[in-house]
Amino acid sequence: MNFRSDNTAAAAAEIVAALTAVNDKPAPAYGEDVWSRKLNEAFSALFEREVRVFTVASGTAANAIALASVTPPWGAVLCHREAHIECDECGAPEFFSGGAKLVLIEGEAAKITPAALQEAIVRNARGIHSVAPSVVSISQTTERGAVYKPEEVAAIGEIAKRAGLATHMDGARFGNAVAALGCAPADVTWRAGVDLLSFGATKNGAIAAEAIVCFDLDRAEEIARRRKRGGHLLCKGRYPAAQFLAYLEGGLWLKLAARANALATKLGAAGAAHVSTPVESNQVFIKPGAEKLAKLRAAGAEFYDWSPGEARLVVSWNQSEADIEAMCRLLASL
Amino acid sequence: MNFRSDNTAAAAAEIVAALTAVNDKPAPAYGEDVWSRKLNEAFSALFEREVRVFTVASGTAANAIALASVTPPWGAVLCHREAHIECDECGAPEFFSGGAKLVLIEGEAAKITPAALQEAIVRNARGIHSVAPSVVSISQTTERGAVYKPEEVAAIGEIAKRAGLATHMDGARFGNAVAALGCAPADVTWRAGVDLLSFGATKNGAIAAEAIVCFDLDRAEEIARRRKRGGHLLCKGRYPAAQFLAYLEGGLWLKLAARANALATKLGAAGAAHVSTPVESNQVFIKPGAEKLAKLRAAGAEFYDWSPGEARLVVSWNQSEADIEAMCRLLASL
Amino acid sequence: MNFRSDNTAAAAAEIVAALTAVNDKPAPAYGEDVWSRKLNEAFSALFEREVRVFTVASGTAANAIALASVTPPWGAVLCHREAHIECDECGAPEFFSGGAKLVLIEGEAAKITPAALQEAIVRNARGIHSVAPSVVSISQTTERGAVYKPEEVAAIGEIAKRAGLATHMDGARFGNAVAALGCAPADVTWRAGVDLLSFGATKNGAIAAEAIVCFDLDRAEEIARRRKRGGHLLCKGRYPAAQFLAYLEGGLWLKLAARANALATKLGAAGAAHVSTPVESNQVFIKPGAEKLAKLRAAGAEFYDWSPGEARLVVSWNQSEADIEAMCRLLASL
Amino acid sequence: MNFRSDNTAAAAAEIVAALTAVNDKPAPAYGEDVWSRKLNEAFSALFEREVRVFTVASGTAANAIALASVTPPWGAVLCHREAHIECDECGAPEFFSGGAKLVLIEGEAAKITPAALQEAIVRNARGIHSVAPSVVSISQTTERGAVYKPEEVAAIGEIAKRAGLATHMDGARFGNAVAALGCAPADVTWRAGVDLLSFGATKNGAIAAEAIVCFDLDRAEEIARRRKRGGHLLCKGRYPAAQFLAYLEGGLWLKLAARANALATKLGAAGAAHVSTPVESNQVFIKPGAEKLAKLRAAGAEFYDWSPGEARLVVSWNQSEADIEAMCRLLASL
Repeated sequence: MNFRSDNTAAAAAEIVAALTAVNDKPAPAYGEDVWSRKLNEAFSALFEREVRVFTVASGTAANAIALASVTPPWGAVLCHREAHIECDECGAPEFFSGGAKLVLIEGEAAKITPAALQEAIVRNARGIHSVAPSVVSISQTTERGAVYKPEEVAAIGEIAKRAGLATHMDGARFGNAVAALGCAPADVTWRAGVDLLSFGATKNGAIAAEAIVCFDLDRAEEIARRRKRGGHLLCKGRYPAAQFLAYLEGGLWLKLAARANALATKLGAAGAAHVSTPVESNQVFIKPGAEKLAKLRAAGAEFYDWSPGEARLVVSWNQSEADIEAMCRLLASL
Repeated sequence: MNFRSDNTAAAAAEIVAALTAVNDKPAPAYGEDVWSRKLNEAFSALFEREVRVFTVASGTAANAIALASVTPPWGAVLCHREAHIECDECGAPEFFSGGAKLVLIEGEAAKITPAALQEAIVRNARGIHSVAPSVVSISQTTERGAVYKPEEVAAIGEIAKRAGLATHMDGARFGNAVAALGCAPADVTWRAGVDLLSFGATKNGAIAAEAIVCFDLDRAEEIARRRKRGGHLLCKGRYPAAQFLAYLEGGLWLKLAARANALATKLGAAGAAHVSTPVESNQVFIKPGAEKLAKLRAAGAEFYDWSPGEARLVVSWNQSEADIEAMCRLLASL
Repeated sequence: MNFRSDNTAAAAAEIVAALTAVNDKPAPAYGEDVWSRKLNEAFSALFEREVRVFTVASGTAANAIALASVTPPWGAVLCHREAHIECDECGAPEFFSGGAKLVLIEGEAAKITPAALQEAIVRNARGIHSVAPSVVSISQTTERGAVYKPEEVAAIGEIAKRAGLATHMDGARFGNAVAALGCAPADVTWRAGVDLLSFGATKNGAIAAEAIVCFDLDRAEEIARRRKRGGHLLCKGRYPAAQFLAYLEGGLWLKLAARANALATKLGAAGAAHVSTPVESNQVFIKPGAEKLAKLRAAGAEFYDWSPGEARLVVSWNQSEADIEAMCRLLASL
Repeated sequence: MNFRSDNTAAAAAEIVAALTAVNDKPAPAYGEDVWSRKLNEAFSALFEREVRVFTVASGTAANAIALASVTPPWGAVLCHREAHIECDECGAPEFFSGGAKLVLIEGEAAKITPAALQEAIVRNARGIHSVAPSVVSISQTTERGAVYKPEEVAAIGEIAKRAGLATHMDGARFGNAVAALGCAPADVTWRAGVDLLSFGATKNGAIAAEAIVCFDLDRAEEIARRRKRGGHLLCKGRYPAAQFLAYLEGGLWLKLAARANALATKLGAAGAAHVSTPVESNQVFIKPGAEKLAKLRAAGAEFYDWSPGEARLVVSWNQSEADIEAMCRLLASL
């Protein structure tokens, strides 16, 4: 019953097969191969408009390179206090941007509200002595598994645009969000004002496939440069490209994400009495207190503590039904 | 007849198989899985001493992170004018180090001589107004396919140590070098004064597997931090680890490299009249003039120009015998 | 009645005279002149131990260079939410450190308590995924004019040392603090665990004279490098040196600061009904509401708003008695 | 007979007087005082067009901030091998730009020729794998005292513009250059394609007064930010402003520079037999061999060696006639 994180799961058979399928003849290096070239096309189709896509080795790289391309060194990135870019990337956004500052916003379920964003922009626009708010970054799903609806993203995007800020979305679990929303990927990204999306596949069935999806085409050249300079332009580009092509093919990404979401919903229902954040995707937060968490662990459940007495359970794309059933029973017994 | 670069080749069957073999149960993320944990052991055995190994996504990342860990922002990296870190990494060493300067040294076959290194150190030690020489970086094999003998590395390492500089080796083609030398990996690295090695596998049969081998254990913590911060700590560490374990298993790396070297030797012999740099590994440089190069291309050969009238032919680990035979005939006919 | 800031005041006659006095024969550049050489001696005498002193052009430079010398790019600087380094330096600490993060701590009167520091250290020590707490920075006086007593600094310094953090003091108004405390400068700095002090003179009578006083001599070489690289090593070092020598001569610095403190105390007494932070140095905070602040302005008082309905009045070293008397009457009439 | 450098000289009486003259009433901080506000006007008049001026503490800061505003971190600054920015600033351009690379060009008398610039641009435009040439920086006067004529600057500016590069001029000794040319300052700067000028006064009679003159007004905001962030926005802006206003007043700057140039010409004539670079401003290079240099030193002359057997003699604005006469006799006697 390993619910530590979806990044502990193996890769989907389709992904591995795709990787094997391209492992054949010589192919041009550095993204000039046929599969890499198909990526822009495949993502443009997915998002119903022209985009540019840049694969990188990690979500941290996707976030940091995307943010650096819209934040001057004296800029500020506005994000939630619990955002991955603030808490879990060892200062990568600061590194790639040349020293920008992360300005933190509070909010339920690790979500930013339009009002809180507006307030943070005003509070931080203090002229030359302070850093300059340059981009807002939201996580979809959030670090507490919440999902922004298209109109929520649009409200944020509009405030950002009006204040001259770019909008970035950390989509490490973008598949889980879109599967939960059932909307077009476009609806919750560029149509809602998102300029740059970190599109993650690793947590949802890939080996190592993360990408920056660039809706603001003027940023593409800079992103290309920053990727190369950061050591994230792979010479054998066919392998990440193949993973992504398989991931999108036939909606595999949504199928895998939907399954994890559904199982998480079951967990949430079973542990409803202790759920501390509404379950909207593949993450379940419960706060039964330290004693009951110890009991869960004693029964074989693995997970991370999130705050005193609170735990996070993440359901992976390939979590076994048996795991879920056993865990449901455990939760119900608390 | 594609001799553009060994980075255009597919991956070895053993590597792909290894990747598939670990694609099974959940495994701890961020290098805490059993395969990642075996890496330090495997590399320590290979190098006959305790080392720390850090996988990264590209050779550029390996070089830049390694150099940054031994160069302050006001430091200088001494390297050959044709070094990959100078010519082909879009300033990654400057980025990761926070603005260090690359000081360029001339030398035959892209090799640095002890005398030239000594001269560059003296010339650049001008106190607080100039940057401070901090590390010498040599490529093994060099960008012209030359191979440093253990005693040549030792002579460089000794000058560096005496002047308080660290020694870094860019081993993007380390396998080809060791296969050519027939020595122990230790002989041409730490026993010869090398503190940090960029150990490449991608060009010699892997999918994407590069590593920093750290002989100076005091640097390990800083390298770990810089890797994470650069977005190069993969969450699913088992996949790069598995590639490396297979790469080392039973000497696969030397077998693949030796084959490429041997085929390059054949090419060199066939084109002896035009060879512009002695063939010592899997790269062949010929300088027959623009007209003859055009003739080669017209006959189906693919390669990069290196200087006016000069071409570089790189033999891959899986280059076909047919390719080689055809190319030998072409070269002989020039 | 200009109480905007002590940085609007002219320079003391002694300082200007000193500057004229050294304006004579040729003198070696870059700090090799006799006056610059006397600085280390003069400050060592002042602090009753060997120190190294580095003049720079601004308090921002002093803070940023000092912090960068004890914080790796992946480090965290712990400071108060209202600290000058957080609010008023346009990200200079992030720039000079190569992207370190400022972690903010709350506290009355812009002071950090030992307990809050301890909590922040623990909360931010999350291994490789988060930045590493590296230094605590406190302001003496604080941005609200409060003064840390020697034992308060010592309590902070001890927690820092135990956790492996350096301790930095932003002494833009160090003179006002020491004049208020009546202690030896050593008591509130290195004897209390401070490793690096930004020693400001500009706000207290100099033209442009700020310095980094380095108690941790091992940091001196790095600070020298960072100063040069930041463009803060002046070629004509005699002029900032002469300012500092005059500033220390005969306790001028304490005389000027004590006067400003005493006048501020008068202001505080006159406006006691509205004082929002106890007056401990040359800054007076009053919170009479917006209407009464408008009344003050209408009567000719100049000052900055600090929060809604709250104002900051700063008394300069050369504030006229007439200004003070008039302002006291105004405050008493509120 | 101190000919070490013009940065060893004291400040002109007019400059010191100006500084004293403004040392009076409170004045707004951070460049909002009346003198700072006059600077843009005074420089706009001098350059016969609208400019923006930013004072900084050193020539290193002026160069580095100017270059950073026109060079992305992955950019290249093209400059002469002997340029001050390459040899004497401890990597400040790399620091302020976030890691740009300096690409070196050879040329007589430390001058860049249009042909050499063209060649360097072509050689370094290698796409994403190499840094991107972004700005050419020339020194006026050069590090060997040579002076670019307006048409020479224009030829460089035109090549730069055609290739999409900005043009920067390091005018640490701009006064000596303009005095030697007898042209309008505009002719040798913006009319010849210069976008940014480091305008130095310190070496020619000021205490500490360097400025970035910005002809490309779109860069002004970024320069303002970078200056603040680099700790170079002084709170008491009146003092550098007053120095500059006095420096320009009545052509003081050209008077001082012309005197130094004329005296240097005398030295050059006296030592004609050994002059190694034609004397065009206030620097004299002689190469009489080590033995004769030792003889000069034994007779009381102070200067720096420039290359084996070669010396640099710099004449200051206030060099005594006696110094010059004595040195002329010495040189003639060699």
